[in-house]
Amino acid sequence: MTAIITALTTQVFDVPLAEVLVDAKHGDHTHFELATVTVKLSDGRDGTGYTYTGGKGGRAIAAMIEHDLTGLLLGQPADDVEALYDAMQWHIHYVGRGGVASFAISAIDVALWDLRCKALGQPLWQVAGGAGDRCRAYGGGIDLGFPLPKLLRSIQSYLDAGMNGVKIKVGQPTLAADVERVAAVRELIGPARKLMVDANYSMSVAEAIDAANAFKPYDLLWFEEPTIPDDYVGFARIAEQTGMPLAMGENLHTLHEFEYAFAQARLSFIQPDASNCGGITGWLQVAKLSERHGLPVCSHGMQELHVSLMAARPNAGWMEVHSFPIDQYTMRPLVIEQHLAVAPNEAGIGVTFDWDKLHAAHRSMHAPT
Amino acid sequence: MTAIITALTTQVFDVPLAEVLVDAKHGDHTHFELATVTVKLSDGRDGTGYTYTGGKGGRAIAAMIEHDLTGLLLGQPADDVEALYDAMQWHIHYVGRGGVASFAISAIDVALWDLRCKALGQPLWQVAGGAGDRCRAYGGGIDLGFPLPKLLRSIQSYLDAGMNGVKIKVGQPTLAADVERVAAVRELIGPARKLMVDANYSMSVAEAIDAANAFKPYDLLWFEEPTIPDDYVGFARIAEQTGMPLAMGENLHTLHEFEYAFAQARLSFIQPDASNCGGITGWLQVAKLSERHGLPVCSHGMQELHVSLMAARPNAGWMEVHSFPIDQYTMRPLVIEQHLAVAPNEAGIGVTFDWDKLHAAHRSMHAPT
Ligand SMILES: [Mg+2]
Ligand SMILES: [Mg+2]
Repeated sequence: MTAIITALTTQVFDVPLAEVLVDAKHGDHTHFELATVTVKLSDGRDGTGYTYTGGKGGRAIAAMIEHDLTGLLLGQPADDVEALYDAMQWHIHYVGRGGVASFAISAIDVALWDLRCKALGQPLWQVAGGAGDRCRAYGGGIDLGFPLPKLLRSIQSYLDAGMNGVKIKVGQPTLAADVERVAAVRELIGPARKLMVDANYSMSVAEAIDAANAFKPYDLLWFEEPTIPDDYVGFARIAEQTGMPLAMGENLHTLHEFEYAFAQARLSFIQPDASNCGGITGWLQVAKLSERHGLPVCSHGMQELHVSLMAARPNAGWMEVHSFPIDQYTMRPLVIEQHLAVAPNEAGIGVTFDWDKLHAAHRSMHAPT
Repeated sequence: MTAIITALTTQVFDVPLAEVLVDAKHGDHTHFELATVTVKLSDGRDGTGYTYTGGKGGRAIAAMIEHDLTGLLLGQPADDVEALYDAMQWHIHYVGRGGVASFAISAIDVALWDLRCKALGQPLWQVAGGAGDRCRAYGGGIDLGFPLPKLLRSIQSYLDAGMNGVKIKVGQPTLAADVERVAAVRELIGPARKLMVDANYSMSVAEAIDAANAFKPYDLLWFEEPTIPDDYVGFARIAEQTGMPLAMGENLHTLHEFEYAFAQARLSFIQPDASNCGGITGWLQVAKLSERHGLPVCSHGMQELHVSLMAARPNAGWMEVHSFPIDQYTMRPLVIEQHLAVAPNEAGIGVTFDWDKLHAAHRSMHAPT
């Protein structure tokens, strides 16, 4: 008898950051939200998935899972993950096509993949493609507010952790200030390591063209989100007029958006995020699309999960190791060996939360002061 | 002293339909959700806005208003609606850019416009442009499941209500069945009245081309959402290969999506919905964009509000009079005079809910059976 889904349990945790982190477009980050969903089957098995936000939307995501998606899934077999993925997309289509719906579907999809991998007795990197068990990784800071000495200490900490690529935020009040920081970081890391910058879509196309030209002497691997993600043809203009390699993806939430980005934006790298582009099913769709377009697939955030997906794919580029301190709340902090991030080898997605620590962190943010 | 926002009160009502209604893509409609938000100011004034869903997402919308947007708005003056609109969009941008966020922002924006119009002592049709106080209107049925005799009775009811345009759903199991229904409706309404069809994006581009060609003898004003809203260039292929006028908009939720639709989809009509494209501020942005592109602006659903917006604009096309029975729950059922829908003339948005009836309707859906 096929096991069926008997329960979905959703939780939202507010997880504080050690300090307020700033980028060019999202304002101050004081905490992030982790929304988890545990899917239980009639034979006693369970799988856990999750999504993140930058501090807003977590309750809406949980409400959509509880009120709109749980009823669809209860009583269904969990095996055909791709069919359930499609069913979820169409079920909430009128209020969906990206946004909160993509985050909610992502969390559930990751839980279904956890069940799938456990049922196969295999780690995610094998089930998701099996190209290998490790991938290139770079440190990505939310460091726009760091004074230069602190920025350099932060970059040094990535090198000390074994990474041979680093990324900094740009979007200072003047381009000269951005260039000074880029130059100083290149000086620190030397010519061999990889350097990227990220404007969090804070620039106009004209500003981004000026910035890309000013960054040219510093041999950037890519310039990330120079302008708003919706302006695919604006991206193409920046690429064509400067020759700068461009990257984006963290703000694309549907396969259609990725298709337009591939067709129109002249990207050099694509950066889907499984926490907001439809989970593992959505991420793999983008990875396969990027293969057809001859682009390396990269990732945004969620390194504890993306390490397995990146390792699995033959066209993997560089995995972002994000600043949110998720390693404090899982049972396996990210492993880096000889500059490569190593995927967990246990059956399942390989991400197990320390629930007690998550509850304690959440409580600490809501304690009376 | 400028009055500031002191409270937002959000409610979600499940409102039953008299019968189950079916279209080609959303399955059975048993009810709709009405999410309302009342914004209170420090000087005692208040305004009420709202959004709809087809039955899913209402709680996520309410959660986003309560947890993510209320904190942003409390303490702010309510006057500069457009600045608050931009602030809301950026505030939830990471989980936004359409979907649930667009619905939540729409509800609040409509409430802010209600306050604005009341402060000016003017009806919405004046404040939103003032071109006139009435607009063309057609009856749009969710009638895919109606047998032909019932379909024709439904169409006759639109004519009896004073409308001189009608729209039916297409997407029957065979194209021949669709054509038979289109032919019968054209026969019933005669050659002078307007006829439209709506596939709710259920067709592939190739299927839509066949359908558009088969519908040609029946002089359609437009073919609505022949294929998925995301496929702008697919729309263009249908238009170019058949000459059929196309319409869409109810599934576009950001100005960027509308910009791409105008640029790439070869539309003949655009149909923004103020309940999901950013409220009145978002709808007017699309209306102005459509003017620049030389297209008539139309509307989807929400006729009790759109009547004022359509009346206000110089490039108004046809307003949809939707099947959801909202007229039972407002103090002013839609007025049609000499085939034109007439905007309310009171100060404010002109939509006042019968709260007792809404609560009773909601309770009736949640009563133990
Ligand atoms: Mg980024
Ligand atoms: Mg429609």
